[in-house]
Amino acid sequence: MSKHAGAVAELVEQLGRLPGVGRKSAERLAFHLLRVSETEALALAESIRRVRQDVRYCATCFNLAESETCGICANSDRDLTRLCVVEQPRDLMSLEQAGIFKGVYHVLLGRIAPLDGIGPDQLTIDDLVERVRVGNFVEIIMATNPTVEGDGTTLYISNLLSEFPVEITRLARGITAGSVLEYANREMIADALMGRQKL
Amino acid sequence: MSKHAGAVAELVEQLGRLPGVGRKSAERLAFHLLRVSETEALALAESIRRVRQDVRYCATCFNLAESETCGICANSDRDLTRLCVVEQPRDLMSLEQAGIFKGVYHVLLGRIAPLDGIGPDQLTIDDLVERVRVGNFVEIIMATNPTVEGDGTTLYISNLLSEFPVEITRLARGITAGSVLEYANREMIADALMGRQKL
Repeated sequence: MSKHAGAVAELVEQLGRLPGVGRKSAERLAFHLLRVSETEALALAESIRRVRQDVRYCATCFNLAESETCGICANSDRDLTRLCVVEQPRDLMSLEQAGIFKGVYHVLLGRIAPLDGIGPDQLTIDDLVERVRVGNFVEIIMATNPTVEGDGTTLYISNLLSEFPVEITRLARGITAGSVLEYANREMIADALMGRQKL
Repeated sequence: MSKHAGAVAELVEQLGRLPGVGRKSAERLAFHLLRVSETEALALAESIRRVRQDVRYCATCFNLAESETCGICANSDRDLTRLCVVEQPRDLMSLEQAGIFKGVYHVLLGRIAPLDGIGPDQLTIDDLVERVRVGNFVEIIMATNPTVEGDGTTLYISNLLSEFPVEITRLARGITAGSVLEYANREMIADALMGRQKL
C-alpha cells in the first residue's frame, strides 16, 4: 500500500479493523467508497459520526438510546411486571423483531467471562438488582446466550435475585424450528428431551 | 430496525450498501462501531471523508493521487520508456505490489463494455493516445483484465496505437481467463509480466 496515496492506504487500514473484513475486502470496500457518489460515501462517514455522538445507553435498561431513555422504556404500553435480561443490545433487537415479548428489558452489556477477565462488576448487574428491588416485577426472564458463559451469568444472577419475591425463568431450550434432527448436536437433543412437552 | 435508535438504523442501512455486506453483517459492523473506542470509530469516518476530499486522479496517468501528480509519475526513478495500461487503480496496485514493473502506468478507469453502455469515450483512451504521441515510449504493455471486455479494450487500443513506432505487448496468459487481476498473487503477476507477448 505504500505505493498508494496515503489517504487510500489509511482507509484500507481502518476498514481492515472491522470484524470479518480482511485485507482484500478492505481494499475492495475502499475502492467502492472511491467509486460511488461523494454523497453516498460521506453519508456513511456521517452515520458513523452520528451514531457515536447521538447514541448512548438508556439510563434504565442500558439498551441503545438517542435520549436519556430508550424507546422501549419510554413506551407506556409495555408490561412493567416482566423483565427480560439479555447480554447485548443486539440480542434485545432479535427478541423485539420476534414481536412476542411485551415487557421491558435489562441489557447486561456482556456476560461473565473469567477467561476474558470480565467479572460481574463490569456488567450492569448492580443496576439490575436495584431495578428488581424497587420495581414491581413478577417475572425475570433470563435470555442470555445458550453458552457456558451465558449459562454461568444466568446462574450468578438468579442467585442474586433469589432474595426477591419474583419468578425467575429462562428461555426454553430445544430443537430449533425449521432445523432437522439429523444435524442437531448432543446438547440440543439433550435439551429437547429434558424439556419435552405434553401434547 | 424501527424498534431501534434512528442513528443505529441509519448506520446499518449505510453499511448494508457496501458490496458484500448483507443485513446481518451490517448489524454486526454497526454494533462493532458502537463498541470500539470513540477514537477508532471516528478514525474510520474521518478516513472516508478524507479519501473523498483529498484523493483525485493523477493528471498524467489517472492513478489515484493526493496532489496533481501521483507518486509513480512524480518518481524520477521510473522508466519513462515503458507504459503499462490498466483498467483501474486497483489493478495498478496489484502490479506495483508484485514489484517487477519499473515503468509508468496509464489507468483507463474502466473497460469498453457495450452491454453496460461504456464506450471508448468514457475511458481515458484519448489521453493515452496523446501520451504515446508526445512521449518517448518504446513499449506499451496492455494489462487489462483477461476477460472478453478486457481483451476487446486491448484490441481497440492496440489498433489506435498501431500508427506509432512503439512495440505493443500484453500480459502473458499465465493469468487464468475469467479471473480478475485484483486477486492475482505475486507469482501469477510475475509470470504474466515476464512472459508478456508481442501483439
